[in-house]
Amino acid sequence: MDKQVGAVDADGNDAPDRVAVEEPLQIVVDGHPLAITMRTPGADEELALGFLLTEGVIRSVDEIRKIDVESRENHALVFLHDDVEVDYGRLTRHVFRASSCGICGRATIDAVTSGQVPLTSEIRFPKDVLLGSPDLLTAAQTTFARTGGLHGVGIFDADGRCLVVREDVGRHNAVDKALGHALRSGNDLASCFLLVSGRVSFEIMQKALVGGVPLVAAISAPSSLAIEFAQRSNQTLVGFLRPPSFRVYAGAERISGLVGC
Amino acid sequence: MDKQVGAVDADGNDAPDRVAVEEPLQIVVDGHPLAITMRTPGADEELALGFLLTEGVIRSVDEIRKIDVESRENHALVFLHDDVEVDYGRLTRHVFRASSCGICGRATIDAVTSGQVPLTSEIRFPKDVLLGSPDLLTAAQTTFARTGGLHGVGIFDADGRCLVVREDVGRHNAVDKALGHALRSGNDLASCFLLVSGRVSFEIMQKALVGGVPLVAAISAPSSLAIEFAQRSNQTLVGFLRPPSFRVYAGAERISGLVGC
Repeated sequence: MDKQVGAVDADGNDAPDRVAVEEPLQIVVDGHPLAITMRTPGADEELALGFLLTEGVIRSVDEIRKIDVESRENHALVFLHDDVEVDYGRLTRHVFRASSCGICGRATIDAVTSGQVPLTSEIRFPKDVLLGSPDLLTAAQTTFARTGGLHGVGIFDADGRCLVVREDVGRHNAVDKALGHALRSGNDLASCFLLVSGRVSFEIMQKALVGGVPLVAAISAPSSLAIEFAQRSNQTLVGFLRPPSFRVYAGAERISGLVGC
Repeated sequence: MDKQVGAVDADGNDAPDRVAVEEPLQIVVDGHPLAITMRTPGADEELALGFLLTEGVIRSVDEIRKIDVESRENHALVFLHDDVEVDYGRLTRHVFRASSCGICGRATIDAVTSGQVPLTSEIRFPKDVLLGSPDLLTAAQTTFARTGGLHGVGIFDADGRCLVVREDVGRHNAVDKALGHALRSGNDLASCFLLVSGRVSFEIMQKALVGGVPLVAAISAPSSLAIEFAQRSNQTLVGFLRPPSFRVYAGAERISGLVGC
């Protein structure tokens, strides 16, 4: 979602431009305001769903009865089924922190990564499928093409089919939207990989792990903690995916077609 | 700060790489844990200072007695002077939210931007000074050059002198570090501009406003809310600063040398 704005170029001439829209979205679960995120409007239902799942507020799409994104502007009103129990006291604190940095108040790397359950998926992704994915992501990033202002995230299967692409001013939101879409659609994320248009931080690996995604690829650089997290959780992490080259920082055995692997 | 990691290239060969370090920093004020941010270690004292100021926890550098970043790993222990009063009950909630998105629980744009006090600075920045700043920022981004993984933020005066450059995996952290450095050094931020290596969101404009910075320039795109915020707060916002061109989205009168302005 983008909009036209007035602007002036370096010669002082009028130069109207299109920019990515950024607005707050408040996520409310059964009347409890849980989190606010600055997002690009659109796919708000998927964003709320992906957020609640990857932050551990709910465990399954089936726990949700309804997500209402129409009644109040910039709000996602989530209603859970009656038998779903959520500890709001604990969560409010958790989610506020999580939406900032994903580490939930734990101040050491060991604490951050303890409790993660490593993936056991034995799926392999052909090298050529990885190398083909950036072009597909770029082609689908329609708003980025107009504004240059959005992160893009795509989910692909092992045959290289693009299941969904989502864009947002916030990279975590783009991940939540894409995962939310896939989870709602019933896609088998254990046989998919995630491609992000920018850098990959610890939090993106964490969200992918909760979603059960075994491989995360990024056009740009990974952080040190993203790599450590991937190693501990048995995820595959690919950085600088710029055909014909890329770098594998963790879990290279999951990529077929690498010489020597 | 970067570190060496093992990696494999697209041909399956060992290809060790250097990546930007990402680790959590917990900011504790007089014993109260206020916020945790995922940051690149280094300049932690400046980061804590910039964060506390731009998030409104303190009003002046003088309120701080000591910042101890040595005693506990990944902690910034801040001690205020005895006569400084902080409402921790309110702040804990505020800061957790603020570190995520800067909007502190306010769910409409009007609410987000209400209460902001517009800048009155009448300083003007020559167009050529703006155009010269990206090269200076790039030259100073030493870790980015090695890793490709960091946001860079520089503060420049109206003569084009670069006062400070800071890098971080988180763009808000890089802003906090740079502002923290300038505020501690006693720089007059009302006569400076901020240059960010990537996109500019609402939250960066907000931090700049609290710091009293009249102009923010970005190498990449602004978001819609960054523009609206700049207009309401009488800030100047320059995007796509890629010499010889740029686009001014708000406050063009503060740039001298534009034809027709």
